[in-house]
Amino acid sequence: MLSAPMISLDDVRAARVRIRDSIYHTPCPYSLSLSRYCDAQIYCKLDHLQMTGSFKERGARNRLLALTDAQKAKGVIAASAGNHALGLSYHGQLLGIPVTVVMPRWAPIVKVTNTRSFGATIIQEANSFEEARRLATSLAEERGLTFISAFDDPHIIAGQGTMGLELLEDVPDLDAVIVPVGGGGLIAGIATVMRALRPQVQIIGVEPVNAACMHVSLRVGKPTHVAPQPTLADGLAVSTPGQLCFDIVKEKVDRVLLVDEANIALSVLRLLELEKTVVEGAGAVSLAAAMEPTLDLRGKKVVLILCGGNIDVTTISRIIDRGLAADGRLCRLTALISDRPGGLANLTTILAATGASIKEVYHDRHFGPADVARVAVNCILETRDFAHIEQIKTALKDARIATLE
Amino acid sequence: MLSAPMISLDDVRAARVRIRDSIYHTPCPYSLSLSRYCDAQIYCKLDHLQMTGSFKERGARNRLLALTDAQKAKGVIAASAGNHALGLSYHGQLLGIPVTVVMPRWAPIVKVTNTRSFGATIIQEANSFEEARRLATSLAEERGLTFISAFDDPHIIAGQGTMGLELLEDVPDLDAVIVPVGGGGLIAGIATVMRALRPQVQIIGVEPVNAACMHVSLRVGKPTHVAPQPTLADGLAVSTPGQLCFDIVKEKVDRVLLVDEANIALSVLRLLELEKTVVEGAGAVSLAAAMEPTLDLRGKKVVLILCGGNIDVTTISRIIDRGLAADGRLCRLTALISDRPGGLANLTTILAATGASIKEVYHDRHFGPADVARVAVNCILETRDFAHIEQIKTALKDARIATLE
Repeated sequence: MLSAPMISLDDVRAARVRIRDSIYHTPCPYSLSLSRYCDAQIYCKLDHLQMTGSFKERGARNRLLALTDAQKAKGVIAASAGNHALGLSYHGQLLGIPVTVVMPRWAPIVKVTNTRSFGATIIQEANSFEEARRLATSLAEERGLTFISAFDDPHIIAGQGTMGLELLEDVPDLDAVIVPVGGGGLIAGIATVMRALRPQVQIIGVEPVNAACMHVSLRVGKPTHVAPQPTLADGLAVSTPGQLCFDIVKEKVDRVLLVDEANIALSVLRLLELEKTVVEGAGAVSLAAAMEPTLDLRGKKVVLILCGGNIDVTTISRIIDRGLAADGRLCRLTALISDRPGGLANLTTILAATGASIKEVYHDRHFGPADVARVAVNCILETRDFAHIEQIKTALKDARIATLE
Repeated sequence: MLSAPMISLDDVRAARVRIRDSIYHTPCPYSLSLSRYCDAQIYCKLDHLQMTGSFKERGARNRLLALTDAQKAKGVIAASAGNHALGLSYHGQLLGIPVTVVMPRWAPIVKVTNTRSFGATIIQEANSFEEARRLATSLAEERGLTFISAFDDPHIIAGQGTMGLELLEDVPDLDAVIVPVGGGGLIAGIATVMRALRPQVQIIGVEPVNAACMHVSLRVGKPTHVAPQPTLADGLAVSTPGQLCFDIVKEKVDRVLLVDEANIALSVLRLLELEKTVVEGAGAVSLAAAMEPTLDLRGKKVVLILCGGNIDVTTISRIIDRGLAADGRLCRLTALISDRPGGLANLTTILAATGASIKEVYHDRHFGPADVARVAVNCILETRDFAHIEQIKTALKDARIATLE
C-alpha cells in the first residue's frame, strides 16, 4: 500500500516565509524550576503568547494566504469553540478577509467575546462541536464561503509546523518534544520537521483520557470516532482525528500518551507557580505527560509545547483551590466540639498551635452528633503538606476532639 | 553643589559582559491585548521569567563577581523578604559563595522555601524589614561577612541597568518605560542607560500609595523615611530609598507615580487574563501606572517592566475573586424570599432567566426580616458586568422580591 500524500519540509519552510512577518517567534526558555520538578532539562515553548493566545494563528494565516483572490473576497467559515476561531478572525481582519465562525453554545464566554472583537460574524447555534462542523460546512456551500478545517488541511499542518523550525533554532540539540493532540494538526506539522531535520528526536503526543481519539485511532489503525467527555483541556476535545493528521502521526510520532483530569489541573497550577505562566488545560497536558514515569526523560533535553493560554480566570481560581487540596495545602475537616462558650476557642487555639491557618469555619447545627451538647464545625485550613495535615489530626486526637471525614 | 558620583553607561556595559552567560535575556514582546486595553503600543519586559522569578539576579550576580577572593571565601549576608534573597542565593550557589539571609518572620512561605532550596542559611528572626537589615549588618561585622544591599550599591545598580541595554536592543524606538520602584536600584540602572543612549525616553517610576518613600523623598529633596503600610506589592515595601539611587532618580527620572491597592490587584488580574502571565504585585504596578490618565501615553511605544513573579497562588485566587467583584463579574446580594416551599425555586428561576450563574447560596435564618414568613438568602452570582447586575436587580424588583445590600 502506498502511504498517503504527506506534507514535506519544503511546505513548512514555505509557510514560514509566508507567515513570518506577522507570527511571533515565541521564546522557548529553559525552566530551572520545572527541570528540578521533572528531573530533566525542561524548555517551554511559550506559544500561548501569540497575539490571540494560541498557536492556531500559524496555520490559520498560512491557510488564508493560500486562498485565491475570489475566495478571499467571498470569505471563509470555520467551526471552533475557541482558539482556531480567534486565530482565524484576527488574521482575517488583518488581511481583510471576512470570517464567519460557528461556535457551540457552551463555548467559553471569553473566547466568544474576543472572537467577536476581531470582527468575525459569530453563529452560536450548535449544541456540540460535531453539529457546529456540520452547520459550518452546509453554510459554506450555501453562501459560497471556503470552509477551513481546524486541523485536517495541508496548509494548516504546514503552518503549525513552523513551530518545529523555531524549536530547532532555539534548542537545536533537543532530545524530545511533548505536544498536545486535539485533531493532530500541530503534532503532524512538528513531526514533519523533526523527522526531516533531527530524526532522533522523540516525539510524544498527549491527549486527555476524556478525549482520546488519536490514541484509540492508532490502536484501531484508522481515524476513529470517540465521543469526548468533558475535560479541562477543552481545546483538545475532538471526536475524530483528521485523516491526513492521522497518517502523519502514525508514521512519524513515537507515542501518544493519555493524562487524566487531576493531572491536567495540577499541571496548570504548576505552570502558574513554577513557570509564572497562564496556560489553558489543553496547553498544560504536555507538562502532565512529562511527569509520566514510563517516559524516562531523566536528564534529557525536553521541550514542552505550551500551545494555548485562553482560560477563564474563574477556572484558574477553581484549579488553584482544588490543586491546593490535591497537594495537601488546603484541608477540610469536621470537628465535634462543645456547644458551650469556649468550645470554638479551644479548637482554634489547638489549630493555631499546629501552624494551620483557618480560611473558613462554619457550624453545622442541623446534622451534628447525637450528643446535643456537642456541635459539628466544618473547617477549611491552609496547610503545608499532607504530613502537616496528619500532625493536625494527631493534635486534635490528643486533645480528645473527635473529627469526622 | 557637586552632584553625587553616578553610575556610568560603561559600568552597566561592563556588568553586562560579566553576567551575560548566566542571566536570561528575557523577551519583551508586543502585547496586542494590553495595547488595546491601554490605547498605546504596549511591550512587556518579562523579567519575572528569570530563573528565580525576578530581575534581582542581575544585580546580585554582578555584585558577587565584584567580591575579592577573600570576601568570596567568607561569604555574604543580606536582608530580604524575598527576591533579593532568591537571586543572591541562586547565584551564590552557582559561584560557590556562601550566602546568609536575614528575613522578616512574615516573609511569604514560598520565598523562604525557595531561598533555602538554593543552599542559603536563613535567619528568620526579625519582625520588620528594618530589623532584618540591622541584624544583617551587625552579623556581617561579627562574622566577617560582606553585607550586600538590595539596591543601594553601585554594582547592584549597574547590574539592574543591564535590563535597559536589552530594552534598547529589543524595542529600539521606545518612547517611554514604566519601572516599579522599591529602593530604586532598578530604575536608577535603567535611567542611567536611557539618558546615555536614548535621552528622549520618558522614564516613569511607580510606587504603591502604601509604600511611597521615593515619591516623598523627591518632594522633600532627600532620602526620607516613610513607614510602609501593608501592600500587595510587598516587594516594593521599602522605608527609605538608597542615597545613590535617590541621586540618580532625582537627576534622570521624569516622575514617580503612585498607584493604589485596588489598581494593583486589578493589574495582576489583567496580566493573568490578557498577557497570560503571573506577576507579583510589585511587578504589576507598571501596568497600574499605564492606566493613569495624566500620563498621556496614547499611541506611544511603552515598555512595562514586569520585574517579579513570586506570588503565592492563594493570593492569586483571592485577587481573582476580588478582581472579578471589582469588575462586576461577581456580585453578592441578599434577597428576602418566602420561607414556604417554592421560595428558593422562584428566586433561582428568575436569576437563571437573567443569565446569571449562581456560585453560592445560603440562608441567613438568624438575622432575617421582621416578617417571619420571609427569610434572607445570600447569593454570590457570576455576572457579565455592572449593567448585567443592574438587570438582575430590576428583574428581582419586577418580581417583587426585595433585596438588601
